[in-house]
Amino acid sequence: MAAHRVVLVGAGFGGLYAAKALRRAAVDLTVIDRRNFHLFQPLLYQVATGGLSPGEIASPVRHVLSRQHNTRVWMAEVRDIDVEHRRVLLNEGEAGYDTLILAPGSSSQHYFGHDDWAPLAPGLKTIEDATEIRSRILLAFECAERETGAAARRGWLTFVIVGGGPTGVELAGALGEIANDTLRHDFRSINPAESTIVLVEGADRVLPAFPPDLSAKAARALKELSVQVKTGSKVTDLDGEGVAISSGDTVERIPAKTVLWAAGVAPSGLGKIVSDRTGAPLDKAGRLIVGPDLTLPGHPEIFVVGDLANFSHQTGKPLEGLAAVAMAEGRYAARAIQTRLRGQAPAPFHYFDKGILATIGRNKAVAAFSRVHISGPVAWFVWLFVHLMYLVEFDNRMLVLVEWTYDYITRNRGARLITGMKRDLKVPPAR
Amino acid sequence: MAAHRVVLVGAGFGGLYAAKALRRAAVDLTVIDRRNFHLFQPLLYQVATGGLSPGEIASPVRHVLSRQHNTRVWMAEVRDIDVEHRRVLLNEGEAGYDTLILAPGSSSQHYFGHDDWAPLAPGLKTIEDATEIRSRILLAFECAERETGAAARRGWLTFVIVGGGPTGVELAGALGEIANDTLRHDFRSINPAESTIVLVEGADRVLPAFPPDLSAKAARALKELSVQVKTGSKVTDLDGEGVAISSGDTVERIPAKTVLWAAGVAPSGLGKIVSDRTGAPLDKAGRLIVGPDLTLPGHPEIFVVGDLANFSHQTGKPLEGLAAVAMAEGRYAARAIQTRLRGQAPAPFHYFDKGILATIGRNKAVAAFSRVHISGPVAWFVWLFVHLMYLVEFDNRMLVLVEWTYDYITRNRGARLITGMKRDLKVPPAR
Repeated sequence: MAAHRVVLVGAGFGGLYAAKALRRAAVDLTVIDRRNFHLFQPLLYQVATGGLSPGEIASPVRHVLSRQHNTRVWMAEVRDIDVEHRRVLLNEGEAGYDTLILAPGSSSQHYFGHDDWAPLAPGLKTIEDATEIRSRILLAFECAERETGAAARRGWLTFVIVGGGPTGVELAGALGEIANDTLRHDFRSINPAESTIVLVEGADRVLPAFPPDLSAKAARALKELSVQVKTGSKVTDLDGEGVAISSGDTVERIPAKTVLWAAGVAPSGLGKIVSDRTGAPLDKAGRLIVGPDLTLPGHPEIFVVGDLANFSHQTGKPLEGLAAVAMAEGRYAARAIQTRLRGQAPAPFHYFDKGILATIGRNKAVAAFSRVHISGPVAWFVWLFVHLMYLVEFDNRMLVLVEWTYDYITRNRGARLITGMKRDLKVPPAR
Repeated sequence: MAAHRVVLVGAGFGGLYAAKALRRAAVDLTVIDRRNFHLFQPLLYQVATGGLSPGEIASPVRHVLSRQHNTRVWMAEVRDIDVEHRRVLLNEGEAGYDTLILAPGSSSQHYFGHDDWAPLAPGLKTIEDATEIRSRILLAFECAERETGAAARRGWLTFVIVGGGPTGVELAGALGEIANDTLRHDFRSINPAESTIVLVEGADRVLPAFPPDLSAKAARALKELSVQVKTGSKVTDLDGEGVAISSGDTVERIPAKTVLWAAGVAPSGLGKIVSDRTGAPLDKAGRLIVGPDLTLPGHPEIFVVGDLANFSHQTGKPLEGLAAVAMAEGRYAARAIQTRLRGQAPAPFHYFDKGILATIGRNKAVAAFSRVHISGPVAWFVWLFVHLMYLVEFDNRMLVLVEWTYDYITRNRGARLITGMKRDLKVPPAR
């Protein structure tokens, strides 16, 4: 009898941990991803701020799984799913399955109906996003150095980050560090420490998913890094020269050449396709609502894990789009498949809360583990340890450790390259 | 009295070493480069083959020079030079000089009149070139894995490298390593070791600038890595599906989806502009012919160093476009300026030959130091040492050492990312 065919779409945290958990299973596994690498997204902000190189937080999927002999890896894009004949249709060719695991993650930023803002305020989701943001930040300082008009210079030295979740807080903290420490001696006409960094959050506190005491600590740490935190505020307009920020009744216009978007992501568009094909309901955010065993209603052969899944059976609220959740869901799906192959029924999925972490600058962090809240340097060491642990490749761990140790001592950030611009790109003209 | 104004164009080896040698000089130095980083070009082929990350071989110019208080760094493009009023005209603004050091290097590949080949056979000159080549190589294996037609698969698994100088030899060696070692366990439908790697060189031996015995050793080492070396051959046509190679009377067509260009570079277009403005003669290659003190005839205030300079006063032949030559020329120009400021005349430039080096794969190299020729693992250690020594930043040296040590032991190459493609790029359709 031919082996049970498992097709897995997406090699992020959910997909990769499902694939690894299937390494000894009697299945024929095909892992499909549009990219050739697994990306360690929690450190993407470090690439965006020049602290790490892309290669240090990305590992080729087929290398990670190369010793897993029941597994093949295809770099391909999923076009559609033929639920009836159980096959995934790719940009070229197809893959038949007995069981399908969907783990496509979140694929693009969510601009709340203002998709035209995307080129003006890049989000942070891919390696290309990160190097684009890195180039914009560094180019802004280069332009400020050569700018002679005071107002225009101020515009170059003002950075607005939209969204006060972990990504926004980590970006703002790293930017504060860049302005206050990293670039301290590098310029002659400007003082980078006079940069203005504004963090805009709609809720009444930063890190709204964290307990309030940690939000307050994070806000304080940001303030020490000269980050202006505007809570209860939202961006109502932006045009490349500045942003309009509305807080209650007042609207303030801040001239800023660099605006970064960290205000939420949208689940993969694959959700819509799957919903159309299976009749499975989508929630308002575009996630597929899954059953207690992470499968779609009427389709026990289709598991959905990670950011695309809305699993609300545990607390009544959907689990957060966290790496830890995706990993747990991926492992569960892998085990459930093996349980079924033994002719048994898997127990429902249960997420054991592993806590949440965010870092602010070079030695502060906040962490909540159920009722235990920690902050400051201790939390930062926990953050460091957890992030190094989960880097999938050992050599990446070593490199990141060397880079961080050196950067920590020297207050440097080693990967400050402006790349990916057109070869002849000129510094934007001074005004 | 205002300080003597030195403007330096280009922060490659020539420019950066000139700038560093001026750190204690009583001058007001402005360093101008189009990019914000100094690139360690000798290791660019390592980025192109996934062994190193861009950040490991590039250092921000303003960081390298940040403690040098007589120096400012501008990221700008030189548009023209107003020789009469002694000012460099930039894309935006200008910089007045008393002495000008031109070190723009080589800016683009030289396709011998076939500029239309550029998109089909990328050269290796910039970070973007390197990541583009890396993406093409890795994507070729991905496509081969999914390709079902034998002929098309062969095309994906055939790599042609045009040019048998150090860059071509190093690329071919690294590709041989990738095919034979790095990817050994990664694929299921193909065996990467069955790749065909062809190195095409017009002269009668590879590394024509090296002594013949070392060329022979390099050819042997390449053969051990399954590289087919075609000397006395040139590419007469290429079209994205294959290349036509003419050797004497015969023309052979090799189907190959991936063609890399390592057949020579063209000096910066700035040479032509400077020649027009000063009347200084250009040689056939487009280099400025300089006097014994590296200045232009009739313009003692303009030094030319590095790849743009044709200095033939020592041996009757122009010095090679090597990093070591550029560094020596840059240092000479810096010292000559200081000698003149003391009211003395500098002695003519003299290049002390530091030898030439090239590496082939993971533990072979060839090196010629005047009459001493070495090869094999000893030469490889020399190569390693020299390249680590000249990486300008200490943390880069550490990172490269960690990465290489790990890669050497595991036969891995840690930075195998396919990036920079359009977000929705599809794997090229199988045929």
